[in-house]
Amino acid sequence: MTSATVLLKDELDIVIPTIRNLDFLEMWRPFFQPYHLIIVQDGDPSKTIKVPDGFDYELYNRNDINKILGPKASCISFKDSACRCFGYMVSKKKYIFTIDDDCFVASDPSGEKINALAQHIQNLLCPSTPYFFNTLYEPYREGADFVRGYPFSLREGVPTAVSHGLWLNIPDYDAPTQLVKPLERNTRYVDAIMTIPKGTLFPMCGMNLAFDRDLIGPAMYFGLMGDGQPIGRYDDMWAGWCCKVICDHLGLGIKTGLPYIYHSKASNPFVNLRKEYKGIFWQEDIIPFFQNVVLSKDATTVQKCYVELAKKVKDNLSKLDPYFDKLAEAMVTWIEAWDELNPSAKSKANGKA
Amino acid sequence: MTSATVLLKDELDIVIPTIRNLDFLEMWRPFFQPYHLIIVQDGDPSKTIKVPDGFDYELYNRNDINKILGPKASCISFKDSACRCFGYMVSKKKYIFTIDDDCFVASDPSGEKINALAQHIQNLLCPSTPYFFNTLYEPYREGADFVRGYPFSLREGVPTAVSHGLWLNIPDYDAPTQLVKPLERNTRYVDAIMTIPKGTLFPMCGMNLAFDRDLIGPAMYFGLMGDGQPIGRYDDMWAGWCCKVICDHLGLGIKTGLPYIYHSKASNPFVNLRKEYKGIFWQEDIIPFFQNVVLSKDATTVQKCYVELAKKVKDNLSKLDPYFDKLAEAMVTWIEAWDELNPSAKSKANGKA
Repeated sequence: MTSATVLLKDELDIVIPTIRNLDFLEMWRPFFQPYHLIIVQDGDPSKTIKVPDGFDYELYNRNDINKILGPKASCISFKDSACRCFGYMVSKKKYIFTIDDDCFVASDPSGEKINALAQHIQNLLCPSTPYFFNTLYEPYREGADFVRGYPFSLREGVPTAVSHGLWLNIPDYDAPTQLVKPLERNTRYVDAIMTIPKGTLFPMCGMNLAFDRDLIGPAMYFGLMGDGQPIGRYDDMWAGWCCKVICDHLGLGIKTGLPYIYHSKASNPFVNLRKEYKGIFWQEDIIPFFQNVVLSKDATTVQKCYVELAKKVKDNLSKLDPYFDKLAEAMVTWIEAWDELNPSAKSKANGKA
Repeated sequence: MTSATVLLKDELDIVIPTIRNLDFLEMWRPFFQPYHLIIVQDGDPSKTIKVPDGFDYELYNRNDINKILGPKASCISFKDSACRCFGYMVSKKKYIFTIDDDCFVASDPSGEKINALAQHIQNLLCPSTPYFFNTLYEPYREGADFVRGYPFSLREGVPTAVSHGLWLNIPDYDAPTQLVKPLERNTRYVDAIMTIPKGTLFPMCGMNLAFDRDLIGPAMYFGLMGDGQPIGRYDDMWAGWCCKVICDHLGLGIKTGLPYIYHSKASNPFVNLRKEYKGIFWQEDIIPFFQNVVLSKDATTVQKCYVELAKKVKDNLSKLDPYFDKLAEAMVTWIEAWDELNPSAKSKANGKA
């Protein structure tokens, strides 16, 4: 673990969206301090956000975003943690780890503090196996392997683009489930990492997430949420559906499971319901769309895939609500802005740098 | 757990293939004794197999199988634990649990003995979720649920046809992996149950397996292995590939994960290599075949699916080896024998009884 942590010290940024002082970093200090932070300040830009001493960071508020992106800043959400994706765009590193500011260090069953970042790095540095299920989970972990009957030609795996970590204490439930089960806490530590199989969608949560920017960065767009939008809390879901479809198309892997963080505070279920309720309807159509979407053979880079996907969103989902027209346009704007800030990204996409 | 165990007392048979005295049952006595056992004696039928006192069982040796099935006995393997599927056929119960005679009671991390059978029953009695991945694993377990972003229309799930349990101590590795890692032991207790997503194949191990006979029984054929056959140790794999494709087609679920058993003894890797080596080549073609096979709309029962699959095996895999011609014919014979012994099975298939 330790050596992996050191290895990527200059290749990874930690992106944190926030509206408050970052006291939560104190608990993460032993794990995060060696890394560079990108803080995306949401809401009122005149407010000053305090960052504990000793951390190396850059901070962007809404004024900065507007200045850097100009009219293209319209693709970055305001008053919603979806704004975090601006941090992905301005980073110059190969890897991103993003975490919410109400997430603390969890402990494993032996009581040891979990270095979530080190586990994400480990997940990203070893291959994924999306084409066949391994019943003993991650075959590359110590003490595990591919089981009998696993085709040998598939044991090399594919590059891992995304590492999706989980949450102890407050689970990531939707508003209706929060309302029905206000006291439910996740206390089950499942000691597993696994590849989400090809062709299977999953609900990607942005609370505790890492990815390879070179491999999948331009697809990590968190959509239009919050201020002026009819929907919230679907930012990470949107990114997850898009990323999964593109990873499947490009032969990249997504892992889920370890590491756990400790999620301290349930958000208000009444507020959440207002943000979510249109998404709850819409996802019944959005999921089949993503399950059936086929990208063309010409879509050989993440950018090309993403622009193609934007067109399909416009063609297929606009009938749900004019919002999807706007979202499809924002997806294209996002890619334009990404390419502007990352002039070498096109050649770097898919590790062809 | 206890109530579930009692619930299915008269609806479940335990099938054990063996060539030796069943001393291993002593350790399982508290869990198995309430149930009826079907023992399938492999090898020399003149040998007497001792069963510990107090167990309720029926025992079939090769002579019995030949007598009951007549010429159709050719579909039941000899000198290979694949013979166990004869037990599935003669059972009259709704559920089957099958276990190898070198599998003992495992302990969970708290040191408690695991009632594997009770966990299998629980797995089979609650639905599966093959159409979307739940990142907190089995959503129906206590303390868990569907996470944010999981479509509400999919939360009812589908009936569970198969429960695939895992193994502590000796992992189920193929001969090459056994040879390379002779000392590897599985000590990782992963506290998870999950549905294998639709469209994803998995290596099904027959060591610790339960299923709903009414839902999937006729597809649980363990093929032609052992005596007179060019291959061994692919019996459960074959059944798993066929079952998965048919479950996907019929809208049924397969779960994997808990319960663990303690697998005591690694089989001889040199012997295993001889049995496996053709399978190691062949599976490189067999897996793509199963990944791409499409069953017709007319295939509305397990039997119809299975016969259709047999035809496709003949058409597509016979080019690998004449063995697959023979196997395809045996698949049809198996269904004929199944229907003969289970005259109401056709109407019962898919729970339409």
